[in-house]
Amino acid sequence: MAYTPKTIKPWSRLGSETVYTCRIFSLRKDRNRSPRDGREHDFFVLDSGDWVNIIPVTANDEIVLIHQYRHGIDDITLEIPGGMVDPHDPSPLHAARREMQEETGFDTEDVIPLGAIHPNPAIQGNRCHTFLARNVSKQFETNFDTTEETEVVLIPYQQIPDLVRQGHITHSLVVTAFYWYELLRQAK
Amino acid sequence: MAYTPKTIKPWSRLGSETVYTCRIFSLRKDRNRSPRDGREHDFFVLDSGDWVNIIPVTANDEIVLIHQYRHGIDDITLEIPGGMVDPHDPSPLHAARREMQEETGFDTEDVIPLGAIHPNPAIQGNRCHTFLARNVSKQFETNFDTTEETEVVLIPYQQIPDLVRQGHITHSLVVTAFYWYELLRQAK
Repeated sequence: MAYTPKTIKPWSRLGSETVYTCRIFSLRKDRNRSPRDGREHDFFVLDSGDWVNIIPVTANDEIVLIHQYRHGIDDITLEIPGGMVDPHDPSPLHAARREMQEETGFDTEDVIPLGAIHPNPAIQGNRCHTFLARNVSKQFETNFDTTEETEVVLIPYQQIPDLVRQGHITHSLVVTAFYWYELLRQAK
Repeated sequence: MAYTPKTIKPWSRLGSETVYTCRIFSLRKDRNRSPRDGREHDFFVLDSGDWVNIIPVTANDEIVLIHQYRHGIDDITLEIPGGMVDPHDPSPLHAARREMQEETGFDTEDVIPLGAIHPNPAIQGNRCHTFLARNVSKQFETNFDTTEETEVVLIPYQQIPDLVRQGHITHSLVVTAFYWYELLRQAK
């Protein structure tokens, strides 16, 4: 397949400084040089650790979704569980399973990777690792920190493509997760 | 369908200040109050205008993709054309068609909306509007500004799901666009 670039070359990084730091990311300014004309430009990158999300599926082929208030859009979304890989998480899989437990109270031992995506390769260096949790069942009460609260809703998988098409699921990393899962289901 | 939240409520915004501004976005700090316990917390949001991307399809069912160097990941990606809605763009559709013209040299009059997505509702307030351009053909030379350069590659649509599944297409907003397009093709 024709997906190896022939003419495009990477830029070189001449310098880098962190210009602002907050709780969940920091903002970095890089000075990069063009391979085409040698000119220098500034580029801004959001630095943060990797993220995870996870599709929990019950034995009845229902997806465990959550309603959640999102400060970026000042509105409530419909999403799968997810979050940041914490320093004490031994792996992205562990982080994803922990987020599922905390945000939904559902759990399973049967978790497999679906893929990893760049949330935004233009301005972020990190990746989001996506997992599938099979045969989940309710095992815990949800456990919220002071800024997080979720409302769990179970929706049959067959309704998910319509929720994506009709714009009820509006988070790009959640839509990406469901496309991977759909491709996996079709491959079987 | 069970997708109206029953218990989750929005937070109230007590104050807001811009803490850093750069060329393509600014960083905002909000002081918000929890509807659950009344406590106040700071949240950080990346402010920028809306974005667009567009899937150009030829009469032979080939997708016009571009290789592009991305500073966030310091690597070359395989994407569809896209960018920011500029102040002088009369509409997101106009912006998407302009980006397609500039980055690929392909064009058509036949452009329709596929959907709009939140790139990241946790930390960004904006949306990315996605379009489908049908029966595109090469009509211009590509037109790069000083920091942008692309390499055009045509790939039959039937190979796209494999490129997504195998991780050759790694940008969440591009994967989202292709899921919407796949759902539209299945609906016909």
